[in-house]
Amino acid sequence: MANNKPTLHDVAKVADVSIATVSNVLNNKSTELGIKTKQKVLDAIEKLNYEPNHFARSLKTGQSNLIVFIVPDQNPFFTEILTELNNECQKHHLHVAVVSSEENELKQQALIETFIGQNVSAIILVPVKSRLNLKKEWHQTPILTIDRKIYGEALPSISVDNEKAAFNATQRIVDSTSENIGLLLANPDISTTSERKRGYELALAKNNITIDQQLIYYSNQQLGTDAQIDSGYHATRALIYQGVRAIVATNHLLLLGALQAIKESGKKITEDIIIVGFDDSYWNEIYTPKLSVISQPTKEIGRVAGEMIHNLIQGKAVASVELSTKLLIRESCSFVSDKSF
Amino acid sequence: MANNKPTLHDVAKVADVSIATVSNVLNNKSTELGIKTKQKVLDAIEKLNYEPNHFARSLKTGQSNLIVFIVPDQNPFFTEILTELNNECQKHHLHVAVVSSEENELKQQALIETFIGQNVSAIILVPVKSRLNLKKEWHQTPILTIDRKIYGEALPSISVDNEKAAFNATQRIVDSTSENIGLLLANPDISTTSERKRGYELALAKNNITIDQQLIYYSNQQLGTDAQIDSGYHATRALIYQGVRAIVATNHLLLLGALQAIKESGKKITEDIIIVGFDDSYWNEIYTPKLSVISQPTKEIGRVAGEMIHNLIQGKAVASVELSTKLLIRESCSFVSDKSF
Repeated sequence: MANNKPTLHDVAKVADVSIATVSNVLNNKSTELGIKTKQKVLDAIEKLNYEPNHFARSLKTGQSNLIVFIVPDQNPFFTEILTELNNECQKHHLHVAVVSSEENELKQQALIETFIGQNVSAIILVPVKSRLNLKKEWHQTPILTIDRKIYGEALPSISVDNEKAAFNATQRIVDSTSENIGLLLANPDISTTSERKRGYELALAKNNITIDQQLIYYSNQQLGTDAQIDSGYHATRALIYQGVRAIVATNHLLLLGALQAIKESGKKITEDIIIVGFDDSYWNEIYTPKLSVISQPTKEIGRVAGEMIHNLIQGKAVASVELSTKLLIRESCSFVSDKSF
Repeated sequence: MANNKPTLHDVAKVADVSIATVSNVLNNKSTELGIKTKQKVLDAIEKLNYEPNHFARSLKTGQSNLIVFIVPDQNPFFTEILTELNNECQKHHLHVAVVSSEENELKQQALIETFIGQNVSAIILVPVKSRLNLKKEWHQTPILTIDRKIYGEALPSISVDNEKAAFNATQRIVDSTSENIGLLLANPDISTTSERKRGYELALAKNNITIDQQLIYYSNQQLGTDAQIDSGYHATRALIYQGVRAIVATNHLLLLGALQAIKESGKKITEDIIIVGFDDSYWNEIYTPKLSVISQPTKEIGRVAGEMIHNLIQGKAVASVELSTKLLIRESCSFVSDKSF
């Protein structure tokens, strides 16, 4: 099929002009060409349904048309955002390249510098920490943060209602039990962690449940993806030892580690423990029991990020956006015994 | 912690020289400097345990030190390779950027052209098809293919023993049943698909089982990740309707779709159907029943790819490599009734 696609040569042949002439028309360098010649080329383009290779063309015009998406780890949450971001960017003839900082601040800095040096059109950043030293040389390149926010810098951001999300997850748990509700958190230095922790605490306070700091576990994300799954696993083992009855796991990797620890312990979800995670995935639906989670609007984040980046590149002002999460109630957040009521 | 890291300024201060002098020493432009001055700088570097920013430095030397990894979809298999590839490349001060062709040959072509135009140091390609039109302008940039092979071009490649892998998976199934063994395959135009299909057919032939083409399903990958999960789902629904007793799912996304269809049908793995998938993941261990899969050596692929790319960039010749897979036998590939023997 690809072979049937019309080329520059085909257009030149049909219009009966040189390839250079077609190229001049495509690049708007046709001032010196007669109107008649230009029309012949445009007719041929229409007749053949020719699509110029915008990517190759952009190279000649000196724009990289390349967006770099700096993620902190290999959480599938970012992969889902990427899918829609790719779709949106394709409309604007922008390519998205993904790189991972592996939660390392120095690597993040090196990546930003490398890609600004590569003349990328813009950077989408999931920052490793909630502070960032913006260098003066960076100001020429638009930077958009998503998921996690940077405090004290006026960078545009796309985030979600993290506090409300964790509040809703915890409230759903409290509807079934008020005893020993554990909380699994990521790195303390990121905005999503503090916001989700606050949501959990607010829900407990609202229900007059004492907040027990010994049931709250942070993870050491410094080593990236595996370290975070591992943190969820070890924290859950500890929580089980403490007699935990319910767990709120505030991201996909922590949930994964928690499920592993629960499975190994011989405890049964919905019988001994209930759990609400964060981030939807295909596995949540096919797991037994089906997993209740806070679903983040990954598609919308990707789409809005693509739009905002496109506007930023064109020099337009953009406003930060906060999107809504949704609690997906499946089987894992109720005790089987509750059903007998 | 990051703030305690010594800077170029600190080195200059300790050595009692200018920043320009330190920079000259770091960039091996110290021929005009006295040996004594050079030694003072090196002593200060050692004393402070100063690590120069190789990435920023490489920019000044004109090398991009950027590797682009072109994947066809968001299969976690590639994410796992990436983790180790990142580790290996970091040793050589190379950054890895990932882009997705979404199984689209034209997009793949545009990506290769864009990044060669960006002066990337090398390309790691998981090709969309088993043929590739290598352009003359591309020859200056090393291209390494991984996972899938290109036929008819002398590109170095890293692959696995796909035929043997599918043979082993199918043989393990045949040990439990010889009836209605379905096969879920990806796109027919890629090398891994034809090799895995051959392994399945060889195993059936060896056991005198007639190959039934109606039990073999290809997927339409054109739309990327979701389309592939969907293909696995619909093929499995059809197979269940055909009275399938066992399924070999030749990648992670197809397996995911198959599990969804089986769960929805009310059939039970190990009671009604047995299954062997491809590609290991955290979920395989925590799923009920635990999932048997062909495990590909993702870490080794990532590590070897990093080494090969480093050699290619340095102009060294490299030989293609075929790595070994492993059948991980868990619960999903045996009928519960078998255990009563």
